[in-house]
Amino acid sequence: MRIKCIVSYDGSQFYGYQVQPGQRTVQGEIEEALSEVHKGKFVRITASGRTDAGVHAMGQVFHFDTDLQIPAAKWPVILNQKIGRDIAILSAEEASEGFHARFDVKTKEYRYIIDKSTVALPFRRHYAVHYPYHLNVEAMREAAAHLEGEHDFTSFSSAKTEVIDRVRTIDFIKVEEIEHELIFRVRGNGFLYNMVRIIAGTLLEVGTGKYKPGEVMKMLEAKDRGAAGKTAPAHGLYLWEVNYQ
Amino acid sequence: MRIKCIVSYDGSQFYGYQVQPGQRTVQGEIEEALSEVHKGKFVRITASGRTDAGVHAMGQVFHFDTDLQIPAAKWPVILNQKIGRDIAILSAEEASEGFHARFDVKTKEYRYIIDKSTVALPFRRHYAVHYPYHLNVEAMREAAAHLEGEHDFTSFSSAKTEVIDRVRTIDFIKVEEIEHELIFRVRGNGFLYNMVRIIAGTLLEVGTGKYKPGEVMKMLEAKDRGAAGKTAPAHGLYLWEVNYQ
Repeated sequence: MRIKCIVSYDGSQFYGYQVQPGQRTVQGEIEEALSEVHKGKFVRITASGRTDAGVHAMGQVFHFDTDLQIPAAKWPVILNQKIGRDIAILSAEEASEGFHARFDVKTKEYRYIIDKSTVALPFRRHYAVHYPYHLNVEAMREAAAHLEGEHDFTSFSSAKTEVIDRVRTIDFIKVEEIEHELIFRVRGNGFLYNMVRIIAGTLLEVGTGKYKPGEVMKMLEAKDRGAAGKTAPAHGLYLWEVNYQ
Repeated sequence: MRIKCIVSYDGSQFYGYQVQPGQRTVQGEIEEALSEVHKGKFVRITASGRTDAGVHAMGQVFHFDTDLQIPAAKWPVILNQKIGRDIAILSAEEASEGFHARFDVKTKEYRYIIDKSTVALPFRRHYAVHYPYHLNVEAMREAAAHLEGEHDFTSFSSAKTEVIDRVRTIDFIKVEEIEHELIFRVRGNGFLYNMVRIIAGTLLEVGTGKYKPGEVMKMLEAKDRGAAGKTAPAHGLYLWEVNYQ
């Protein structure tokens, strides 16, 4: 039986999502709990994708296969008792045998949170990136609009990216203000390595006036990582939602 | 010279605001930093009031006296370098010699944050209280309105309260919904021990239907801690703002 789970985590105390020898990772912690339930038989989980150290998730998705006759809805209760309080299985359901948490992704939404306070707020220090400079939000929205749609995002991906096809479609980039925070919401059909963090970093530099909104079009055309803005820090990033239809 | 500071802190790793021998406290950490700046001479700080272990502050206020000829605006930079990243001095200004951070308070605003998600969100576990039950927000608002104004809040204060006069005025109690969170905003001219946490706990029990909105009037009349609802946990509470005019 294939089980599909939605999991939320606080990335602060993890060495990222993916299993790394000798490090605490989200995947490692869940696989350990699952293997315990399966009486020591190792159970692999497959997620929609990795997240880096410090990156949080509201709704990461993974699947695993089990022979145990446990109703799907019981899995969150069973697993949440065994894993740290900084991971929470939000829900579980039986998926078709052919379902694949990575290959079947249709769209993902990421959010990136900025703390605009003059001095970094202590209770947001692991959950939002402190950026106390004056930001022209309208300019940022204009730049964001240029990034929406289908583009080659080579300039907005890590120079280490090995993927050949770097054309992706962004459904929307919204820039929302809630009190002292600014939130970027980015939904698209696929994301290259560091893509959201480079988009966030570039939008911030548009906000401060370093780049004009229209310049992001030239950045896209350049197809060169050096053409776009900085990579914003990991701890402002949240994998918010993964959609399969 | 008397300096007035606004300070924010993440209460998670503190044994409360007030100095306690052998424990890490907000007051202790700031006084230690100040004494270091004053070359070992102990400097006492006086806050608008205490906060319990786990309680956060967005805008706590304290004052201290100094002989050092340091421009007031420099104090945040100097102190923030010496204290943990879970405390941040947001601003400092010279106050009149007669200013007193506790006695001169006109009003305070507290906020109380509820995480309504079915499963507690990991990145909110120290910053919002998880309450997954269905809540009737309209009933909560109706109950909140009954608590506004001038009342004897004996029923809404810890049984350990030694204060004789328990009449306080609440300017407003707002119940706001933002995505998966519910925020109570409570402003008043003074608060008894545990008062906001008992108001929050009672409103939650009105939300679940345990009490009818009108019953809070009877709770007030009873002048008995046993008449009101439960004391909600510390980690959902924020001292948000202290006003002196």
